[in-house]
Amino acid sequence: MDSDNVIVDDKYNIEAAEILANEAQHLPITEAAPLYEQLLTLFPTAAKYWKQYVEAHMAVNNDDATKQLFSRCLLNCLQIPLWRCYIRFIRKVNEKKGIEGQEETRKAFDFMLSYLGADIASGPVWMEYITFLKTLPAQNTQEESQRMTAVRKVYQKAIITPTHHIEQLWKDYENFENSVSRQLAKGLLSEYQPKYNSARAVYRERKKYVDEIDWNMLAVPPSGSYKEELQWMAWKRLLAFEKGNPQRIDSASSNKRIIFTYEQCLMYLYHYPDIWYDYATWHAKTGSIDAAVKVFQRALKALPDSEMLRYAYAELEESRGAIQSAKKIYESLLGDGVNTTALAHIQFIRFLRRTEGVEAARKYFLDARKSPNCTYHVYVAYAMMAFCLDKDPKVAHNVFEAGLKRFMHEPVYILEYADFLTRLNDDRNIRALFERALSSLPPEESVEVWKRFTHFEQTYGDLASMLKVEQRRKEALSRTGEEGPSALEGSLQDVVSRYTFMDLWPCSSNDLDHLARQEIIQKAQELKLIANRL
Amino acid sequence: MDSDNVIVDDKYNIEAAEILANEAQHLPITEAAPLYEQLLTLFPTAAKYWKQYVEAHMAVNNDDATKQLFSRCLLNCLQIPLWRCYIRFIRKVNEKKGIEGQEETRKAFDFMLSYLGADIASGPVWMEYITFLKTLPAQNTQEESQRMTAVRKVYQKAIITPTHHIEQLWKDYENFENSVSRQLAKGLLSEYQPKYNSARAVYRERKKYVDEIDWNMLAVPPSGSYKEELQWMAWKRLLAFEKGNPQRIDSASSNKRIIFTYEQCLMYLYHYPDIWYDYATWHAKTGSIDAAVKVFQRALKALPDSEMLRYAYAELEESRGAIQSAKKIYESLLGDGVNTTALAHIQFIRFLRRTEGVEAARKYFLDARKSPNCTYHVYVAYAMMAFCLDKDPKVAHNVFEAGLKRFMHEPVYILEYADFLTRLNDDRNIRALFERALSSLPPEESVEVWKRFTHFEQTYGDLASMLKVEQRRKEALSRTGEEGPSALEGSLQDVVSRYTFMDLWPCSSNDLDHLARQEIIQKAQELKLIANRL
Repeated sequence: MDSDNVIVDDKYNIEAAEILANEAQHLPITEAAPLYEQLLTLFPTAAKYWKQYVEAHMAVNNDDATKQLFSRCLLNCLQIPLWRCYIRFIRKVNEKKGIEGQEETRKAFDFMLSYLGADIASGPVWMEYITFLKTLPAQNTQEESQRMTAVRKVYQKAIITPTHHIEQLWKDYENFENSVSRQLAKGLLSEYQPKYNSARAVYRERKKYVDEIDWNMLAVPPSGSYKEELQWMAWKRLLAFEKGNPQRIDSASSNKRIIFTYEQCLMYLYHYPDIWYDYATWHAKTGSIDAAVKVFQRALKALPDSEMLRYAYAELEESRGAIQSAKKIYESLLGDGVNTTALAHIQFIRFLRRTEGVEAARKYFLDARKSPNCTYHVYVAYAMMAFCLDKDPKVAHNVFEAGLKRFMHEPVYILEYADFLTRLNDDRNIRALFERALSSLPPEESVEVWKRFTHFEQTYGDLASMLKVEQRRKEALSRTGEEGPSALEGSLQDVVSRYTFMDLWPCSSNDLDHLARQEIIQKAQELKLIANRL
Repeated sequence: MDSDNVIVDDKYNIEAAEILANEAQHLPITEAAPLYEQLLTLFPTAAKYWKQYVEAHMAVNNDDATKQLFSRCLLNCLQIPLWRCYIRFIRKVNEKKGIEGQEETRKAFDFMLSYLGADIASGPVWMEYITFLKTLPAQNTQEESQRMTAVRKVYQKAIITPTHHIEQLWKDYENFENSVSRQLAKGLLSEYQPKYNSARAVYRERKKYVDEIDWNMLAVPPSGSYKEELQWMAWKRLLAFEKGNPQRIDSASSNKRIIFTYEQCLMYLYHYPDIWYDYATWHAKTGSIDAAVKVFQRALKALPDSEMLRYAYAELEESRGAIQSAKKIYESLLGDGVNTTALAHIQFIRFLRRTEGVEAARKYFLDARKSPNCTYHVYVAYAMMAFCLDKDPKVAHNVFEAGLKRFMHEPVYILEYADFLTRLNDDRNIRALFERALSSLPPEESVEVWKRFTHFEQTYGDLASMLKVEQRRKEALSRTGEEGPSALEGSLQDVVSRYTFMDLWPCSSNDLDHLARQEIIQKAQELKLIANRL
């Protein structure tokens, strides 16, 4: 995974992308198209490249290609400039189609505003829409009245939408109503004034959050840079702000705005698994499990290698009782079987145990043992499951014993096995296990095993066996060469460790510091002596 | 203990000591004596103060007081200037006593050299002794011959002793032998030349170690200063050098020199428990358990509060089968019973279990429960002993349950009890214990218990119980105020922790870093928000 990441980082080179985009801009569209496709495969949410691409088609009036491009990008790129380009395109192709064309254009405006009307930068779009509606021809007073009603409706939406242009829109609306009817205006304006005021207040608050966001950022996998973290933080703050429903609107509208914010956020933090996860769990919490599922599916398209997202997704399915769906996700984690990770084996066994029972888990374990990536972890996990869940210490013991044949060289496995035997309170077998392991492990691998053996004798042994194992440990480890000659001698620190219980020490913390410092000095000095001798 | 140390540090004020010593020097002896006594109670191994004290008596010819003082300090202060002062005193009081006085003086020289002859600075003493011997009157040739033999014997010891004056002594010896008999000289000198050469070589090597030592240092408890650590290191190096027997002398002589070095070392590192311990164990290893015991007894006089030295001493006695002696030391650790530490209770119970059996340990535990300092540790220790050593889970369980009535408010006790039940694989009782504890522990005390409960459900529970306990934990801990509002939401990090097994993670280390950093940023931000709100 790590090595993948390095390649990924190379791939998502922002400078190279900018150079490529610049190059494409100066080429004829037929030559530029493959470059844009390359760019947009890497940066599918880069609205600016989509816009550049689509404008290149528009410049040569490739209407079909333009339409196609818009259908590929609009819903994933909730960005005003791109969508205004779309409106321009729709207006152009419908310019000469009379009423039908006007209807198409109106629909396009509605479509855009339904997706982007909430954008803080959507003011000019509202204005353009109103202007467009105002210029529609009216044959008679009825039509004039209808047109006026349509304009009023849009105004009344625009003035309660917190945008950069909200004050301008309010003034325009005042003029509009006054031009229609001075008398009616008074009532309408005083009705809308508080709603407008509230929207303006929210605008001012929201602007602070929005200003923190870099709207030109390309979506690259997190590299840990400070700039990226600032952006992540800015988005989290904006999301938290929106989740608080600052405008006190109805929950459906509020949810729509939260979704809008998540969608915009994911244009930039497309490679951030935590954002996908938060988005999906927000949906699930809001009651829309299906929406959550869809977010997970999109997340896995964006981050196909993210195991944690897969587990999160499987967890959602399992939680809602969709066991078969969950199983499919687990199976996707297993992959082709050859490269299945030990963790995937383990989690699948646990899943089977939970959902299908002991026998299914056992069967899978027996197969998994033969997998090339079956590490000792799988044995430990299965044995502990048998012990803790099936209450079957015998099976657990057999599994550990079978594993020992394969993993005698793994100190961690030895320690896990010893832990298990400790739970059985089976000191005879623990001692035997330590002896078997230490007779085959090389000294440099056995440090932790010796440590545990010592600790074991401090609990289970008498004074003689305690002292003996410590001496043996010193002798064995002195052969690793990492310990100097003094390591062979018993130290006061050993006494302290023998007579310490939990956090009760047979000395003051000053003494402890002193002994610890001395040990460090001693070791440093011995290493120096050894180094000098070399 | 820590607070003791602060007082101690105050008490052992070097500057104040020097001022006091200076003051004493300018007072008549009757007034100075109490000041010296005060000084020497604090610094019983400060040879320079003893010398000053004794010289003050000598100046006014207080011979009896002088003698008394010498008997109090000489053997604890193996320092050349102090002992030369002693020789001066002996010579003075025996000056006019004829042959008897000469014999006394000779004995004093022998006495001094037997203790300090090995000192690198003992050259002048050897010389003075030789001069003294040379000036003894001889009535006849027989006596002259005896005198010559005596001088030769001393020379022959002096020239194989590595001292600063070894070359001068060799030249003197050559002259001496040549003045006795040119013919004999040749044989003797060529016999001694290689021994002298070897001693001179060792002198040069040893000098490097000795030069690192500050022979003016006052013995103060370690405060952790760099200077102190350098001195500690210098002594450890010198001791290691001597233990290597660089002069290849017989082991009795080598041991004598090692003892001499330890004794000198302890004049300066008198408050260093590790030196006392090393000295005692060196004795024990060399086969002299009685000497080791004596060192421990002196160590406990020097550091009466050092529990670890007491345990080390008890361990030595127990190891050699002197159970009654060991028991007495354990009893000294218990003290008056009122202030007995929990650790002392525990170690005594374990000692009784080892040496007198289950019943003695049980009886003591029943009493110890009533002690005012009986903390939960005593219950844990006794329960685990019953479980691990007596294989009696029922007693262990009863002890834990009895302790719960007293220690329900101790999260660590809850965790230990839970650990024990986990070893019994008794999930019903573990769950019940967690619920009981969490219903009474305040949230800010229950962080670790919740953590363990969560981990427990990850092992023993199904998905629903896993998720439920995590949610409950979040809700409970969010009330502590230390966690921000986001803490209530499930995070991707929670998913990671649910699907991690041992060191197998469902994500790359980059992902982990990223998630961890995000959590830190988030928390910092929320704390800032909370702080701003205050």
